[in-house]
Amino acid sequence: MKDIQIRPAGEHDFDAMWSIFCAHVASGETYPFTTATSREAGHAYWLGPDVASFVATSGGARLLGMYRLVPNQLGRGHHVANASFMVSPSAQGAGIGRLLGEHCLDEARRQGYLAMQFNYVVSTNTAAIRLWKKLGFSIVGTLPKAFRHKRLGFVDAYVMYQMLQDPDHWPTVDA
Amino acid sequence: MKDIQIRPAGEHDFDAMWSIFCAHVASGETYPFTTATSREAGHAYWLGPDVASFVATSGGARLLGMYRLVPNQLGRGHHVANASFMVSPSAQGAGIGRLLGEHCLDEARRQGYLAMQFNYVVSTNTAAIRLWKKLGFSIVGTLPKAFRHKRLGFVDAYVMYQMLQDPDHWPTVDA
Repeated sequence: MKDIQIRPAGEHDFDAMWSIFCAHVASGETYPFTTATSREAGHAYWLGPDVASFVATSGGARLLGMYRLVPNQLGRGHHVANASFMVSPSAQGAGIGRLLGEHCLDEARRQGYLAMQFNYVVSTNTAAIRLWKKLGFSIVGTLPKAFRHKRLGFVDAYVMYQMLQDPDHWPTVDA
Repeated sequence: MKDIQIRPAGEHDFDAMWSIFCAHVASGETYPFTTATSREAGHAYWLGPDVASFVATSGGARLLGMYRLVPNQLGRGHHVANASFMVSPSAQGAGIGRLLGEHCLDEARRQGYLAMQFNYVVSTNTAAIRLWKKLGFSIVGTLPKAFRHKRLGFVDAYVMYQMLQDPDHWPTVDA
């Protein structure tokens, strides 16, 4: 796929983002949201205040995928980022997830985050887990039967994590 | 300590709850909140819609501690509960945490939760970790340097988990 650009998401992207979101949610295999999720809740998730969202487009037009970057905790956990990714079903297998992942890690470092955590990677989503490992993440926790998979029933979910800066060089903490 | 009751929290409890909350937050050793947390945010955390909160009182009056019980994820993760606990500094060491923990596990089972997860137990909070292990939790994940401890700097946090029902007897999943 040629001419892929990644840029901050805007209101004018939301129709296409919502369409990708709905496709993922309908599968019931990767995200906790159900089809009962309202468009308003989807909007808050992707374009709410304090959410940094980016989209990948082809030729500046067709939306191929997106990610959101937020602090995983407030306050004393604010140095750890959290991110979520969705690629359009029609663009899967073309390396968009990898481009978004690399962009997200760069963006998180740029914003000053010191680590990144995924709270809830469905254990049967092997393509995603393979990609995150390639991009430096490790599985640091296993949540037994924490995800209700639409086809497979209750399956494990993983917590994945990586440092974004060498911990020996993390800033000195002020109270 | 005698004559301890645990009952649902109400609006009239909030002044005392906020006072306990502020004491924990000021310590900077157990929860991610900083002292910048507004009373409104504290109210939403403890008494917001969809939050089940309970308080322990002595003789029906003095508030000794509290917990909140919520789903850890929506939708496909809604069967796993999450809970947070705070005991009044003046009541610590009297077994209030244990009473609240046992009450919370019972309440979660009563509400139909199948498992319980703590996302962010500060690794240096050894009294809490010992208690949760006694009450059946295991450490299922370690988040390196994920908590900015006020005195100790960046320290690890744990993910803790326990099944509330035998997984062999979890309900059959509907899509």
